[in-house]
Amino acid sequence: MEEKEISQAVIGRLPRYFRYLEELKDGGVERISSQDLSELMKVTASQIRQDLNNFGGFGQQGYGYNVEYLYDEIGKILGLNRKHNFIIVGAGNLGRALGNYLNFERRGFIFKGMFDRNPEFVGERVRGVEVMSMEELDSFVRENDIDIAVLTIPKTGAREVAEQLVKNGIRGIWNFAHVDLNVPEGIQVENVHLSDSLMKLSYNIDRYEKGIDMRVEGEREE
Amino acid sequence: MEEKEISQAVIGRLPRYFRYLEELKDGGVERISSQDLSELMKVTASQIRQDLNNFGGFGQQGYGYNVEYLYDEIGKILGLNRKHNFIIVGAGNLGRALGNYLNFERRGFIFKGMFDRNPEFVGERVRGVEVMSMEELDSFVRENDIDIAVLTIPKTGAREVAEQLVKNGIRGIWNFAHVDLNVPEGIQVENVHLSDSLMKLSYNIDRYEKGIDMRVEGEREE
Repeated sequence: MEEKEISQAVIGRLPRYFRYLEELKDGGVERISSQDLSELMKVTASQIRQDLNNFGGFGQQGYGYNVEYLYDEIGKILGLNRKHNFIIVGAGNLGRALGNYLNFERRGFIFKGMFDRNPEFVGERVRGVEVMSMEELDSFVRENDIDIAVLTIPKTGAREVAEQLVKNGIRGIWNFAHVDLNVPEGIQVENVHLSDSLMKLSYNIDRYEKGIDMRVEGEREE
Repeated sequence: MEEKEISQAVIGRLPRYFRYLEELKDGGVERISSQDLSELMKVTASQIRQDLNNFGGFGQQGYGYNVEYLYDEIGKILGLNRKHNFIIVGAGNLGRALGNYLNFERRGFIFKGMFDRNPEFVGERVRGVEVMSMEELDSFVRENDIDIAVLTIPKTGAREVAEQLVKNGIRGIWNFAHVDLNVPEGIQVENVHLSDSLMKLSYNIDRYEKGIDMRVEGEREE
């Protein structure tokens, strides 16, 4: 099979396709045209065709896309047909929220362990998974085939924990700590900097209001 | 002042500049060259210059950037010099995590109220803020100058709640529900679809390993 480098922008859009196709599938829809999918997702039909063509395309001219097939194929591309074991480091509210999110399991992400440096949390259970002390982290990661670590700890110490995880063979870090991590090549990091997203929202709110003020002024001048 | 449309890609990068500049400022750094900032942030110096030129530029040739000035100016661009009152709808673990995050306050985001349809949560306090019933939502939003609503509820019902919020004058929604919202023009939405981000991580882990396999095969063929 011929493969080419797919841009991160396209990869970033695949989960959204996957989400919409899942909704369609769960709703009993068997086929959808790129036009209808385009209206539903509010992106252009040509964008959809281009994105999916990166993976060889899935449409049959005139028949639209087979929803279940497309759903399965995008799932495979995203690696969701494989199991990924994950742990959560940080048993605060955010860690617990992620640990309790059942949908991850459905996607093949298996919640295996939780760690916290606070001794009060150790021994508690989050959806049946025990909170362990940080001293147990190294051996647990090595012995339980853990692919992914979710970091829900404050930024202080996050880089050290990431280093420790990498040493013990972690392959991906889902980073909620408010700091960019330095990891060796080959270790994948996906950052969720929640404040960044809130600041972008703030910008867009203010910008929209300034835009209205400017248009009003513009009209006055004419 | 002349203003032009700034791309969402640039806007999306501003909070990261802000975060780094804050760290530099807190660390007592007064000036930084675009070259040093570039190495720190792992983006090219020309990208930095280009991004900041969108806002009239902040650099003095040969002197680098004044950290505190740049920090303040980017803060103003992001609207962080204004107060934004926000509420959280959904008092589960994720809602509580966000309610407890003190740094939002430092950025001008003031946590005013929390709502949940579960009567067991009503009356509880999260960082001093009372959890109220959904029946109190409409009047609370109208009477307390609420700009932003954070949605940390399941996808069922999220669109209805968004509609309700819009009717009562909300200007921005920070959406953690796993569904895209339909809101009128002028209402800003920032989505945080956590699963999407996890799927992207999964893709990059598998892709990297396939890449290694392919390189090994390629070498064998030569």
